Amino acid sequence: MQQESDRLRGEGLRIGFVPTMGALHEGHLDLLRLCRTHCDVTVMSVFVNPTQFGANEDFGRYPRDLDRDAMLAASAGCDILFTPQAEEVYPPGYSTWVQEEILSATLEGRSRPTHFRGVTTVVTKLFLMVKPHCAVFGQKDAQQAAIIKRMVRDLHFDIELLIAPIRREADGLAMSSRNMYLSESGRIEALALSRSLRLAEQFVAGGGRDADAIRALVKDELNRSGAVTVDYVALLDAETLDEVDMLSGQATLLAIAARVDRTRLIDNTILRVETIER
Amino acid sequence: MQQESDRLRGEGLRIGFVPTMGALHEGHLDLLRLCRTHCDVTVMSVFVNPTQFGANEDFGRYPRDLDRDAMLAASAGCDILFTPQAEEVYPPGYSTWVQEEILSATLEGRSRPTHFRGVTTVVTKLFLMVKPHCAVFGQKDAQQAAIIKRMVRDLHFDIELLIAPIRREADGLAMSSRNMYLSESGRIEALALSRSLRLAEQFVAGGGRDADAIRALVKDELNRSGAVTVDYVALLDAETLDEVDMLSGQATLLAIAARVDRTRLIDNTILRVETIER
Repeated sequence: MQQESDRLRGEGLRIGFVPTMGALHEGHLDLLRLCRTHCDVTVMSVFVNPTQFGANEDFGRYPRDLDRDAMLAASAGCDILFTPQAEEVYPPGYSTWVQEEILSATLEGRSRPTHFRGVTTVVTKLFLMVKPHCAVFGQKDAQQAAIIKRMVRDLHFDIELLIAPIRREADGLAMSSRNMYLSESGRIEALALSRSLRLAEQFVAGGGRDADAIRALVKDELNRSGAVTVDYVALLDAETLDEVDMLSGQATLLAIAARVDRTRLIDNTILRVETIER
Repeated sequence: MQQESDRLRGEGLRIGFVPTMGALHEGHLDLLRLCRTHCDVTVMSVFVNPTQFGANEDFGRYPRDLDRDAMLAASAGCDILFTPQAEEVYPPGYSTWVQEEILSATLEGRSRPTHFRGVTTVVTKLFLMVKPHCAVFGQKDAQQAAIIKRMVRDLHFDIELLIAPIRREADGLAMSSRNMYLSESGRIEALALSRSLRLAEQFVAGGGRDADAIRALVKDELNRSGAVTVDYVALLDAETLDEVDMLSGQATLLAIAARVDRTRLIDNTILRVETIER
């Protein structure tokens, strides 16, 4: 992969990179399509990264279907499908980690304490293997996007980051490889997540600014379904992930996590207050 | 720096990199000279990295003389002197670290618990800023060399590492920027370090294999000087830094650290057993 990237760079071509864990859906293909508009050659990696799963999480049963992924990636214009093996990515006796310590401590990091260390470490490795000019991540994993952005800045990766908007099913459910785990009824109950975000957006559009009120609104909507167990409902500065009490001109991330059936789902939206110059 | 490196790479030139903290001596210039034999353009960085100093260490009084460094570097054939500022290397609110967790825990890491985290983090940043094809480190900092080697392997940096031998004064003292701190008498007492290593080498050349015996020999020599306080005398596998009981065909690192006056000095040698095939 490094040799191929050197060769492409030597020809003056711009390399774009979309890291994934496979189990591709239209959300991933959106990342690929966005990537193609910013570079000459698009590389997509498929690697189910063991170190970002906790001991009791779904690493073993995470969906894997490389043939299907390869077909989908090619159909969306992927030039190179990079599928490294775990023993290559993590050599025997590996002992080096990349850790972002502030943004990683909240939200997902609280429920999944080793998750983001696994993410930043594997993304560093993949960046160094693929040597891209730009890389695309999804807004679906809003905290991950903020952490990768911070890591790229802090470590001076010479890589342009692009964040692609959340892709949703027709009924509003944010696309996720983990939606496969949902039962038929769970699939319907899970709509409470996107519905609660829409309610919050409407509340803000109508002049609502108070974070407590927004959180209460969202929790109430989620709790209306007995099948949904709320993990967190958070209002944070979209860049620093500091908690927000009152919406202002800054972009505010409304992020939620909840369990439906036994599946943990996340969703989010950016709340913006239109400031009117007088 | 990144743009210049891209330009040089675009011309097909091979970039060599020598990271330093300045206060250059002939040891650093050896690194530069070795680098020049492996690449087309040599970059030397001078950056006194705050994060590799402990709270009670010598960050404030570490010798700084950029004009002198620039002259010396140029005289040894340095093409680019890279002198980033601390606020560039560590942007405001930085929160990302690179940490090697196994090799870093022993020797220097025991006395200086946050030292190697600072080293691996800054070397990662410098690698990403300079984008070298090869980089040179000194055997003087044997543990650092082993850790950087491990980090480069683990994270997949596409960089060839070269380790330059220890450069010594005529009387045997290993060159170090910290030798400046020594008093005239301390300078003489400090010779116990290299002398003890020579004794160990002779012991092994004469058939000695037992690590306890070698350690005792070295400690006795160091303790003969009342001005020398031993921190550690260690015999380790040169690559894994695992402790060694008995010398074998593997390269064994004999590493020592001691205080002379109030200055902490380190030195080391690789002990090799000549195995005779029968």
